[in-house]
Amino acid sequence: MTASIDTGVSEELLAEGRRAYELDREHVFHSWQAQGPFKPMTIVKTEGSFVWDGEGRKLIDLSSQLVNTNIGHQHPKVVEAIQEQAAQICTIAPQHVNAARSEAARLIAERTPGDLNHIFFTNGGADAVEHAVRMARLHTGRQKVLSAYRSYHGGTQLAVNITGDPRRFDSDYSSEGVVHFMPAYTYRSYFGSETPEQETERALRHLEDMITLEGPRNIAALILESVPGTAGIYAPPPGYLEGVRELTAKYGIVYIADEVMAGFGRTGTWFAVENFNVTPDLMTFAKGVNSGYVPLGGVAISDAIFETFRDRVYQGGLTYSGHPLASAAAVATINAMEDEGMVANAQRLGRDIIGPRLQEMKAKHPSIGDVRGLGCFWAIELVKNAETKEPMAAYGGSSPEMNELVGAIKAAGVLPFANFNRIHVVPALNISDELLIQALDVIDEALTITDGYVTA
Amino acid sequence: MTASIDTGVSEELLAEGRRAYELDREHVFHSWQAQGPFKPMTIVKTEGSFVWDGEGRKLIDLSSQLVNTNIGHQHPKVVEAIQEQAAQICTIAPQHVNAARSEAARLIAERTPGDLNHIFFTNGGADAVEHAVRMARLHTGRQKVLSAYRSYHGGTQLAVNITGDPRRFDSDYSSEGVVHFMPAYTYRSYFGSETPEQETERALRHLEDMITLEGPRNIAALILESVPGTAGIYAPPPGYLEGVRELTAKYGIVYIADEVMAGFGRTGTWFAVENFNVTPDLMTFAKGVNSGYVPLGGVAISDAIFETFRDRVYQGGLTYSGHPLASAAAVATINAMEDEGMVANAQRLGRDIIGPRLQEMKAKHPSIGDVRGLGCFWAIELVKNAETKEPMAAYGGSSPEMNELVGAIKAAGVLPFANFNRIHVVPALNISDELLIQALDVIDEALTITDGYVTA
Ligand SMILES: Cc1ncc(COP(=O)(O)O)c(C=O)c1O
Ligand SMILES: Cc1ncc(COP(=O)(O)O)c(C=O)c1O
Repeated sequence: MTASIDTGVSEELLAEGRRAYELDREHVFHSWQAQGPFKPMTIVKTEGSFVWDGEGRKLIDLSSQLVNTNIGHQHPKVVEAIQEQAAQICTIAPQHVNAARSEAARLIAERTPGDLNHIFFTNGGADAVEHAVRMARLHTGRQKVLSAYRSYHGGTQLAVNITGDPRRFDSDYSSEGVVHFMPAYTYRSYFGSETPEQETERALRHLEDMITLEGPRNIAALILESVPGTAGIYAPPPGYLEGVRELTAKYGIVYIADEVMAGFGRTGTWFAVENFNVTPDLMTFAKGVNSGYVPLGGVAISDAIFETFRDRVYQGGLTYSGHPLASAAAVATINAMEDEGMVANAQRLGRDIIGPRLQEMKAKHPSIGDVRGLGCFWAIELVKNAETKEPMAAYGGSSPEMNELVGAIKAAGVLPFANFNRIHVVPALNISDELLIQALDVIDEALTITDGYVTA
Repeated sequence: MTASIDTGVSEELLAEGRRAYELDREHVFHSWQAQGPFKPMTIVKTEGSFVWDGEGRKLIDLSSQLVNTNIGHQHPKVVEAIQEQAAQICTIAPQHVNAARSEAARLIAERTPGDLNHIFFTNGGADAVEHAVRMARLHTGRQKVLSAYRSYHGGTQLAVNITGDPRRFDSDYSSEGVVHFMPAYTYRSYFGSETPEQETERALRHLEDMITLEGPRNIAALILESVPGTAGIYAPPPGYLEGVRELTAKYGIVYIADEVMAGFGRTGTWFAVENFNVTPDLMTFAKGVNSGYVPLGGVAISDAIFETFRDRVYQGGLTYSGHPLASAAAVATINAMEDEGMVANAQRLGRDIIGPRLQEMKAKHPSIGDVRGLGCFWAIELVKNAETKEPMAAYGGSSPEMNELVGAIKAAGVLPFANFNRIHVVPALNISDELLIQALDVIDEALTITDGYVTA
């Protein structure tokens, strides 16, 4: 299979794309890039699970962009809702009541677990994390934050320091009160565990040791992706999150579940914590809340933490908190997901299609070290050697082997999400079975490339 | 004059507003508030320079919300552009080229002064500030940031610590490498100055002393609102910004102009620095860039700082950087401002209507301590005593007198922007002369209230 040129893309659109590319190289400063050598891909059209590049090639979007278009591209109900809200009220200051915001808060609070009944809206994931930590600090009167290595929590100063991946190195002044712990990660256990049960037990013992040694009375919050995303979609082993919930409760530490990537149906439940039967004290969200059609994020707040700010001013805010257009997109997105059964579909796709197929692929491809995931949230971890688990690209970097693989997948008409030595399978929750299988076929075939680099 | 009930607002809309209020109190957690006692105003409709509250009362919007709707509400060209972009491409990951983003970057870079030719997009003002500081730190290899007291730079952890107002107190761990200096502020000079010239000279001497005493080689950036906004719209005296530009150049410090509030026509020029003939190294923007119709902010970057990141990865980013819908709104906003001459109009309104009228009011009302501003960016500073300059509300707080004044202005049909002991006159740049004069009449009349509290 090779990506096909779609004659449905007009020459006008392609010309606009070429001009966009020129202007981009002249004036757009890109996230996470060295600006000079960067050769970005142009996207001229999007629809459902397809995107069209600057040459008019049609690709299956297996990335959901940055794992945010959970409902696919250009969902007609959400597009219409944005257009209607735009005609009514585009924007209003956060201190005024607005119908779209109120309804979005209701729909979210209805779906969040436990007593997470109060919604503070932000513009994205990073500021959601920043404000969640602020709330925890003010609620507890403590300052330290515990967070996991191999995690991502956002690009602003505090959020990037909370992050446990190399993107924080350049901005790390050890001044944010952040302490990193080793999370449960069975495939590459930090604790020499051989089973998930062992990993849970040892990782929790490590965590309690860290709490004791850092001083429980200094620790405001523990923040953890319910299923760590960009860092490798490594779902916690059974009992781990329950243990985290117990330990944080025991020591009066606010448990912040970061569901910016894992939330809103991605794992086959509305929120990933539901898979593990825990309720955090604060939960951050963004991305899937409205599939990123309009920038939006937020924090769901427990009744107990809300009480802290009932009579005390919450010293935090932003101009676009609860933005009407973003909120209207959230309302339409949540309703569409509900009406079209997307969350259950994500669960089915993971259970019946992606999971079994990746297991099959693992049995066949020596370069696959591990496959794991749930819902529409899966990782293929590639290694040079199954025994030593030597990664196909060093931690924090890329490699010629991975670049060749990604190039082949794209050339065959699939837009993948790649990170270090991993390919993530993170389609829209409503991708058709047929397209999904077609995309998995492409990856299956392309993996013969990395198989060729296996050394033993 | 009293606010009139507009029979044009349907009973349906009012019922929706009542339901929105109930849901808001149940589920929405508001910025900068104690959640319990907060009694927000409902807005059910907006248009041009009008907003309609939950009872259907029509008010002249003299706040531009949070000083962001520079083109007024529901500008038809921008609404249409949002609707059209929504029909094309709502969202795309930041690493892909997109036509709306490229064009927005071009239009902004065309207007920014000097060689600020590269645009990094964020979601709002706070993250623009966070990333500008990151860029300055990586560019210089230094860590400290100098910022002014009586300033506002955003609500995330680093931005709120850079902020020089009481909103940072709750989050201040003195760990961010931020050092505050005394800015030039002639009305309440920190230096005992009696003239603007004296203030410029003394404030610059103070600043150079601070740089020397903090250690120039440790200071990455100096950040300054070109005209400090929320903190009191106190434009710098002649020569001050030129001096800041010289000092920062002399010591190799990156000069960040924060134009989140002052930019995009607010002061009667595209950017406020133009009034003072300086070009900063980095300039942050948000709000006016698209009047907040879709969340957007950013950093304009000089060629020299761009060079630092030509071959070195910029370790910063966010999911919605250069969001197509937000960018399309910026394109339409900038074009509408250009085509309709809004920037020049803002200048005219300030020079011919607001300025003279506020001077007149000052001569008449003993409670006015100072009036100042330019373009559509003015403050009325209220005092109990003209001699002692005792403010009508203590710094950082409100007062019964101010609450009474604001209540009266609202009751008379004008939505003001109030902060501590000040009323800001910050209308849309395209407000009609007639409406503006009507709103100023309301304020003029209401000030008899504070006049009654003058003690000498
Ligand atoms: C778990 C998690 N938290 C926070 C963020 C930051 O979100 P944003 O990029 O919207 O700031 C991300 C983004 O990928 C994320 O995956
Ligand atoms: C000068 C200035 N900088 C930064 C900000 C923060 O912007 P935002 O509220 O969009 O985060 C503001 C907001 O009022 C501002 O006035």
